[in-house]
Amino acid sequence: MNLSAIHQVIETNRQSILDHFFELLRMPTISADSNHKDDLHHTAYWLVQYCQKIGLKARILPTSGAPVVFAEYCPYPNLPTLLIYGHYDVQPVDPLEQWLTPPFNPTIKGDMIYARGVDDDKGQFFSFLKAMEIIYSQTGSLPGNYKIVIEGEEEIGSAHFEELLSSQKKLFQADSILIMDAGQFDRGVPALVYGLRGLAYFEITCTGPAFDVHSGQFGGGVPNPAISLIKILSQLKNDRGQITIPGFYQDVQEPEPWEREQMAQLPFQEENIKKELSIRAFQQELNYTSLESMTVRPTFDICGIWGGYTGSGSKTIIPARCSAKFSFRLVPNQIPSKIATLFLEHLKSIVPPDIDYRVEVLPGIEPILTDPHKPIFTAFNQAIKNHFGRSPVLIRGGGSVGVANLFKRYLVPDSICMNGWGSPDDGVHSPNEHFSINDFFRGIHSTVDFLYEFQASLIRG
Amino acid sequence: MNLSAIHQVIETNRQSILDHFFELLRMPTISADSNHKDDLHHTAYWLVQYCQKIGLKARILPTSGAPVVFAEYCPYPNLPTLLIYGHYDVQPVDPLEQWLTPPFNPTIKGDMIYARGVDDDKGQFFSFLKAMEIIYSQTGSLPGNYKIVIEGEEEIGSAHFEELLSSQKKLFQADSILIMDAGQFDRGVPALVYGLRGLAYFEITCTGPAFDVHSGQFGGGVPNPAISLIKILSQLKNDRGQITIPGFYQDVQEPEPWEREQMAQLPFQEENIKKELSIRAFQQELNYTSLESMTVRPTFDICGIWGGYTGSGSKTIIPARCSAKFSFRLVPNQIPSKIATLFLEHLKSIVPPDIDYRVEVLPGIEPILTDPHKPIFTAFNQAIKNHFGRSPVLIRGGGSVGVANLFKRYLVPDSICMNGWGSPDDGVHSPNEHFSINDFFRGIHSTVDFLYEFQASLIRG
Repeated sequence: MNLSAIHQVIETNRQSILDHFFELLRMPTISADSNHKDDLHHTAYWLVQYCQKIGLKARILPTSGAPVVFAEYCPYPNLPTLLIYGHYDVQPVDPLEQWLTPPFNPTIKGDMIYARGVDDDKGQFFSFLKAMEIIYSQTGSLPGNYKIVIEGEEEIGSAHFEELLSSQKKLFQADSILIMDAGQFDRGVPALVYGLRGLAYFEITCTGPAFDVHSGQFGGGVPNPAISLIKILSQLKNDRGQITIPGFYQDVQEPEPWEREQMAQLPFQEENIKKELSIRAFQQELNYTSLESMTVRPTFDICGIWGGYTGSGSKTIIPARCSAKFSFRLVPNQIPSKIATLFLEHLKSIVPPDIDYRVEVLPGIEPILTDPHKPIFTAFNQAIKNHFGRSPVLIRGGGSVGVANLFKRYLVPDSICMNGWGSPDDGVHSPNEHFSINDFFRGIHSTVDFLYEFQASLIRG
Repeated sequence: MNLSAIHQVIETNRQSILDHFFELLRMPTISADSNHKDDLHHTAYWLVQYCQKIGLKARILPTSGAPVVFAEYCPYPNLPTLLIYGHYDVQPVDPLEQWLTPPFNPTIKGDMIYARGVDDDKGQFFSFLKAMEIIYSQTGSLPGNYKIVIEGEEEIGSAHFEELLSSQKKLFQADSILIMDAGQFDRGVPALVYGLRGLAYFEITCTGPAFDVHSGQFGGGVPNPAISLIKILSQLKNDRGQITIPGFYQDVQEPEPWEREQMAQLPFQEENIKKELSIRAFQQELNYTSLESMTVRPTFDICGIWGGYTGSGSKTIIPARCSAKFSFRLVPNQIPSKIATLFLEHLKSIVPPDIDYRVEVLPGIEPILTDPHKPIFTAFNQAIKNHFGRSPVLIRGGGSVGVANLFKRYLVPDSICMNGWGSPDDGVHSPNEHFSINDFFRGIHSTVDFLYEFQASLIRG
């Protein structure tokens, strides 16, 4: 297949592609705001029509929340199927006064388009649809079997999407999954994500006296629950950045040598991050770099802590109770429920019997690791190289992505690739969100090549 | 002097004494509520008139807050002067719905009078005035030199009283001070307080990133200020209940053997307190009893702590900052400013240089210790024995009393006795505050004997 004609069509139609993209960007699909319910339905319907126009069998899957757009093209019974995920909903726009242009009136300045959702996630999945559209318009078919899923509640937790996925596993069945909701590692450094950390999350409350009591009258005798709490929490991580719960590292999969080598070569802007966040130093785990500590190593964080008097001046009390929320980021092959068990056992051994505490185990998330040498990765690697002038870096993400775990749980556990064309400084979730026109088109071009590469590799394989 | 006639007069006039007391109790002198400004003035005027009726030279000392009642009787130039302190203001009555009788309509049930302020502090100073009144009515004079000070803002911090005291030291000049604002150690166990703990109070804030950041993206690398904070605070007190700041105990005056012996014999209701406060155990300092730890030993308490996400569910952030308020209760001869210096120096040595924190030193209070063998104590000891059937216990209080420190600072540093006839379970500051009629009259009788004993001891001495 000679693809140059297709690439030519993309280039000669840049203006109409942008015009079409802007139609989508003008739709105020804020899922968190019930006033935009009609906008969500309108957009889903618009996307269904678009998918139908480009050769896919598309329809709306209703949920008790926002509708899910589902489209498929599966004419080759002997070939595997790729499911592509995106979301058409966007974050709220507040604070509106900080926007320099109206969030739903896309505006070009230089190479950038400014609009809410232009990066997250409209620009990501729309570039994929555009690549399909142009291939279909030029060839009358698409290379391979595809399912497209575009949900409308990603920004509010994908709750109804999970209901749908769990109840209709067969419909979504696929062999590989591409989540078009990530981005470049840094501008000009495209990336493919092949792993994500998991999460174990807890809330602990220590109780002291039944009510706040006078610290003069009772201080020195009556147990102070804030002191109990901090004594417990301060024992969970040592000064070398290591978690002290026995067995915590038992299942941890060490990063492989090639992963560490690659990470060492990544253009990680440590000084920029320090400046941006106003921190004087990173505090990574002993024997690991800060990037490794933030992506391939488990860690402990206190997310919130509260108890006693927090107003102005000095109120002299022993508080009745004190609580904290804290989390462990997990790495392959740690299991949240096992970590919870280890943690609770450890508590029993370190907390004196006269300290009253209770722990709530909040929902955990499993870590994800797929094989970055699978065809979906190698195909994208070549395709991106063709149009970005460099191979994408292979990375693991430090956080969790809800839908990735849903796909892992309900569909395929081990062939999930996360990708996208946005950059970390696009202001996702913030005022003046923007997206590079150049990257948008490089994304369309890369997707065209990816579709053919992936297809070819499957046939070859 | 044969006092039996005086004691007889008290007994035969119980009803009219109570009627008179109830007049005072009906005055809603809530200093915290500006609606009661006129009530405060009216009560102060009523007290001035009463003092004048019983042989004292009395007047109102205006302040920019509630007026102070000042009365004196100093006919003996060669004898020392005793200043007696009380306060006519009371706490607010809320929650009103929990009162079984109207708070300003004193009601007798069994041996108890129910009314706001009946114990704290109207019952305490009024019993003193009643003793004076009856002596004066029977003898036409009072034994000794006295100054009476009754302020109207004790429940809101005595701020204007301090202004007055500091600007008119000469007017208040006295040789001994009796603060009629304490109470019995336990019902039936009268007490004299000869020492109070002091206070050093701090607020600390640790800062991490400039704003809350995602714990998935940055966890393991970006410093978590809540972890920094708890690591600092958890190092300040060891598991033996000892404060770990170098030099902290340098100035600490150990309790004397007789004090420890006496404390060991006190009817300290450890089990009752555990039950009332719903605690399983006391956590006292090693080698000290819980009562000692709560009164004659310094200690550390966290009064409040806050930072990060405190709502429901799991929000995965590294908070931008985390703060805590905490205090050290100090004992003689610890000085708050010196403790602050030691603490700040210690911080520098234990906190790694890449942790950002700042500390605010809030106003401290000096501990107080007077000699319980001085005449004021011995006179009261005998007087109380006469009417309560047992000697009062000598105790040191765990908290601080604002006016005691004012008197120490502006008048006499070392002859301050705190006394009163109320009991710990009188519900002071709570709904249904009450006071034993029997203790009220035992208080009047004891005060009569005290006034003569004290006077006699001075002449003897």
